Amino acid sequence: MDIIFVEEQMNTSKVKKFLIGEPFPTSMAIHERLDKVRALAVFASDPISSNAYATEAVMSILIVMGSGALNMTMPIVMAIAALVLIVVFSYIQTIMHYPKGGGSYIVAKDNLGTLPSLIAAGALLTDYSLTVSVSVSAGIRAIVSAFPEIYDYRVLLALGTIALLTWMNLRGVRESGSIFALPTYAFIGGVILVIVIGLIRSFGLFGAAPLVPQTISTELLTEDLTQLGMIWILLRAFAAGCTALTGIEAISDGVQAFKPPESKNAAQTMVTMGIIAMSLFIGISYLSTHLNLIPTHHDSLLSQLTRTVVGEGFLYYWVQIFTMLILVLAANTGYQDFPRLGYFLARDKFMPRWMTNQGDRLVFNGGILTLATVSSVIIIIFHADEFAMLPLYAIGVMLSFTISQAGMVKLMTKVSKLKPDESMDTLETHLHHEKGWQWKRVVNAVGATTTAIVFLVLVVTKFVEGAWIVVLLIPLIIMMFYKIRGHYNNVSGWLSTRTIVENEISEVADVVILPIGDVHRGTVRALQYAQRLSTDVRAVYVSTDNALKERFLKRWQKFPSLTKNVNLVGIDYDYRDFLTPLIEYIEEVNNIEFPDCTITVVIPEIVTDNLATSILHNKTAFLLRQRLRKYLDIIIIEIPFHILPPPKKADHKFTGVADKIPDSPIESQNNAKDVDEKPATD
Amino acid sequence: MDIIFVEEQMNTSKVKKFLIGEPFPTSMAIHERLDKVRALAVFASDPISSNAYATEAVMSILIVMGSGALNMTMPIVMAIAALVLIVVFSYIQTIMHYPKGGGSYIVAKDNLGTLPSLIAAGALLTDYSLTVSVSVSAGIRAIVSAFPEIYDYRVLLALGTIALLTWMNLRGVRESGSIFALPTYAFIGGVILVIVIGLIRSFGLFGAAPLVPQTISTELLTEDLTQLGMIWILLRAFAAGCTALTGIEAISDGVQAFKPPESKNAAQTMVTMGIIAMSLFIGISYLSTHLNLIPTHHDSLLSQLTRTVVGEGFLYYWVQIFTMLILVLAANTGYQDFPRLGYFLARDKFMPRWMTNQGDRLVFNGGILTLATVSSVIIIIFHADEFAMLPLYAIGVMLSFTISQAGMVKLMTKVSKLKPDESMDTLETHLHHEKGWQWKRVVNAVGATTTAIVFLVLVVTKFVEGAWIVVLLIPLIIMMFYKIRGHYNNVSGWLSTRTIVENEISEVADVVILPIGDVHRGTVRALQYAQRLSTDVRAVYVSTDNALKERFLKRWQKFPSLTKNVNLVGIDYDYRDFLTPLIEYIEEVNNIEFPDCTITVVIPEIVTDNLATSILHNKTAFLLRQRLRKYLDIIIIEIPFHILPPPKKADHKFTGVADKIPDSPIESQNNAKDVDEKPATD
Repeated sequence: MDIIFVEEQMNTSKVKKFLIGEPFPTSMAIHERLDKVRALAVFASDPISSNAYATEAVMSILIVMGSGALNMTMPIVMAIAALVLIVVFSYIQTIMHYPKGGGSYIVAKDNLGTLPSLIAAGALLTDYSLTVSVSVSAGIRAIVSAFPEIYDYRVLLALGTIALLTWMNLRGVRESGSIFALPTYAFIGGVILVIVIGLIRSFGLFGAAPLVPQTISTELLTEDLTQLGMIWILLRAFAAGCTALTGIEAISDGVQAFKPPESKNAAQTMVTMGIIAMSLFIGISYLSTHLNLIPTHHDSLLSQLTRTVVGEGFLYYWVQIFTMLILVLAANTGYQDFPRLGYFLARDKFMPRWMTNQGDRLVFNGGILTLATVSSVIIIIFHADEFAMLPLYAIGVMLSFTISQAGMVKLMTKVSKLKPDESMDTLETHLHHEKGWQWKRVVNAVGATTTAIVFLVLVVTKFVEGAWIVVLLIPLIIMMFYKIRGHYNNVSGWLSTRTIVENEISEVADVVILPIGDVHRGTVRALQYAQRLSTDVRAVYVSTDNALKERFLKRWQKFPSLTKNVNLVGIDYDYRDFLTPLIEYIEEVNNIEFPDCTITVVIPEIVTDNLATSILHNKTAFLLRQRLRKYLDIIIIEIPFHILPPPKKADHKFTGVADKIPDSPIESQNNAKDVDEKPATD
Repeated sequence: MDIIFVEEQMNTSKVKKFLIGEPFPTSMAIHERLDKVRALAVFASDPISSNAYATEAVMSILIVMGSGALNMTMPIVMAIAALVLIVVFSYIQTIMHYPKGGGSYIVAKDNLGTLPSLIAAGALLTDYSLTVSVSVSAGIRAIVSAFPEIYDYRVLLALGTIALLTWMNLRGVRESGSIFALPTYAFIGGVILVIVIGLIRSFGLFGAAPLVPQTISTELLTEDLTQLGMIWILLRAFAAGCTALTGIEAISDGVQAFKPPESKNAAQTMVTMGIIAMSLFIGISYLSTHLNLIPTHHDSLLSQLTRTVVGEGFLYYWVQIFTMLILVLAANTGYQDFPRLGYFLARDKFMPRWMTNQGDRLVFNGGILTLATVSSVIIIIFHADEFAMLPLYAIGVMLSFTISQAGMVKLMTKVSKLKPDESMDTLETHLHHEKGWQWKRVVNAVGATTTAIVFLVLVVTKFVEGAWIVVLLIPLIIMMFYKIRGHYNNVSGWLSTRTIVENEISEVADVVILPIGDVHRGTVRALQYAQRLSTDVRAVYVSTDNALKERFLKRWQKFPSLTKNVNLVGIDYDYRDFLTPLIEYIEEVNNIEFPDCTITVVIPEIVTDNLATSILHNKTAFLLRQRLRKYLDIIIIEIPFHILPPPKKADHKFTGVADKIPDSPIESQNNAKDVDEKPATD
């Protein structure tokens, strides 16, 4: 008949507004974007924060061969920096070709097919969750070092930090951008200052007091090491340093979070981030080795370096405090990346559909809450000990780098076949002829090969310490993706309109079953409604107590006008779980009496005015409904009866029941059951 | 019309049967009782286990005044033992007069009125919860002392122990009785053997090698103590020893758990328990002071005593191991007492009604689970540190002793007025004339006075350390009791059949509202059902996305035969929370169009075959139902559509949807929404 469309204004609860903030309209989505300054803070805190420990990680492994081996630090650091450079340039290609966002998943899906894309996605989801757990645990460790008396509470503190991050991210990206800008830039500024002063003093420029390197022994403890053993240690040092690369790819996935022109802004931010991260890494490593610093357990390398260069003054505390803050904030990149990847996967039916739902503040609430749950579980399992988690970390990222860049090689091959003025559409992007595809393809190919090698190195060197968990987990995640997709396809099959039959609902039988526990206003209401629906109303009473049964029958017979058209079915049952015989009776009516019909069950339910009082009632109606839902041919009708607050003035409908002494032995025995809430009243 | 009664057999799920055991029929209740041997184990583990620390608690406080002050131990211990004796005899009166169980709550209610009974109940609930938390924490500490590497996990271990106790108690009392018999008797036997050997050797009887007391200084460090200060310390020592009294009253509350004749068996068990507890207490205290043992932090007094008397042999480890076990098992008395008191309170409407429900194994599941929750929370708050909890402990018990015995004084006064052959009924019991009421009343009066004084001593001496929490908590619990009672009275008022009006349900309007998110078999089924109910069916579609809206309209118009009698109401909404405009529309129809009628809302709902797949769907139908329940005049009808596992063979009703590439730009954009689960499909 008619089709009317009206427009509706927003209306939300005050509590939600207070916690999450004013809801944003969908049309505002385009404005809820990041400028480059905020974007750098949001996306770069992960790779930049790794400077707090990356150099130290390399040196801690080299020192096994004696302090003389520390002169291998700079070559390894330069190799990692070169790797950063390769990855950054490779990803700039991705950003330019996927303006709607081209994370490894999208690129792989577009160029390599479903399975590679799911491998990349599984690897990344693992790594994003670990980013949160590792960074939060590391941040909490910094606080715990300062206040050892709270050591026992570190798991709770870590979980609290995750709760805080979750809350900030549910409020939306722009605000979290502002919150994160300060520590990121304060950390960058502080470390750059330390490096510059360090260099100036090292070379005695501008007449500064020169820094004198510590004297350390240069001996090598390599007598009992084979050449293979040495290579193994060098590879492990390299692998340890590779944590510096985690989070670098985030920008390519999040192009849509930038203000327009998205691709250009994202690419510029990517380059800036790469330059900053590399400069800090090389600067810290150069000065540390130049000054012959040695990693120790109780004092971090960055702390030693800062103290040596500028003493324990203001700048020292500045760097320490913001090291801690940027570590906790690095966790936030996980909150940017995980929900976004979850959205792409859910859009393709590989993750639960609710991951595509945007909340009041236009963020993916489902993904944010899932990430919070997963990383909390990791923190609980590993007891907030980030050293136990590190062997699992960075592997996923390398795997996804490899897949993504292999996809870009394929894409460039497609581009190479386009003539000038020719263009083509793929699933996710639009390609033109472009110049220089040859060297671009080489960049991507070099990137893919390098990261593949690094991936293998990571798996092999960290396998025993924990990498095996990731190797086992990723296939399980991929299986889950396929299971979810299978379920949605099954749902589509069942729901498809192509299969609609003439009568989706079988004939409705003239019978109504009404579970009843007592005769009171709530059940009378339901009885009256049931009699309007059918001529064959059956009130079903399950008796688990003889005294109660007699009392019920007396009350039932007190209202002949109400019950004269109703059949009362009584079931004697010697157990307390009265739902079971009730459902067996309903099943019997459904399957034997009316085998090809739909039958109707009317459930009276007491509804109280708030949550506090609702826990005072048995959840009988709820439980009955849950168990009846699995029957194909049963329609459930709820008849709510509302318990309002007691009326202030006398109300003819209300009788305040006195705390009277019960006046019959039955009532005395069953005082508590005076107002009955047995079968199906609430 | 007809009233039929049928009898129904039991039928339960396998998982539940495996976890909880075969359900017991209600008629079996009388058999599920404890014989005296098991009853002693169940009820006595709490008071008897206190011997593991009671003497030490007294001596640890006395030693503040120097080791010379330890000769005050025996006088204090004898005072406490006398207190035990008084309380035991006082409670035997209670047991004999309240054969159905006469905890402090019942006795106070019967003789002193509601408020005193609720004070006793609130005090006891607090103390029962603390019994579990304190005993479990102490037991875990014993394990942790042996394996310090698990120190970090003590909270988890304590919670695990509570889970285990909960599970055992859900399985029923007889089995838990059997489980607990061994450690209780093993502990009693071991300690008695130590005491007997200790006495024999101390007095050199039977030619045994005599024990030589340690030499200790007898000086008193009382120079800077005023006389008041000394009394203060003596009072604190006495208060510390009073933990020995916790749990003594449990038997009087649990008379019904005994095999018949209940009263006699319970009274005999009470006396046995009192004698054992007192003998152990006096024996341990006498030998410890005789041998001049001094309490230290790292070695418990009982351990020192055992080592001195029998050396570090088999008996030493026996006592140590069963000390640990009986401590954990003492927690079990809480599981006996809390649910039983909860039942009495719930019967009188002061606690949620579900506390009266008996589970498959005839135990009060509600009370057991509530206790488990409360004591887990205490353990988490106090970080499983029982020393932090101890100042809160024992106070509630003393308060309830006082109230209960004051009640017995009143009862004996009633008895005193009965002539021979005369009898009277009170609310909870039946009284006869009896001889010797005079001295019985004196026993109770002495008991009431003594415990009242002890209560005041406990509150004053422990106030600052934590007793204030209990002093604050008990009134709050009493307020909760009254609030709950108020709610149930309100419910009674609203439900009372005296207030039934002719039409409890207002006229049902000829209108059906059907929220719809997509056209598929599930919603078509609901549409067909709705059209049978009414001539005015309104399908309500909330549009949050224009592309989706166009697609929906196309599909809607594809089925003219289905939709020709249905009005489509569309609402454009610029936020993602589409439930709000939906409910506003329903409200409008309910309040403005049909102000005095009941309206019907039909909700299509997708039901999947298991929990794992159900989390893949939005809970729209559930959320809508939750929000609609608060309206008085809305009837909710659920139309379930079942998603079954995919059919093995070709089924004409089922179309397996291929992982096809979407064939229209709209579907490409909204691939994930192909099978729609927006408003009210699941």
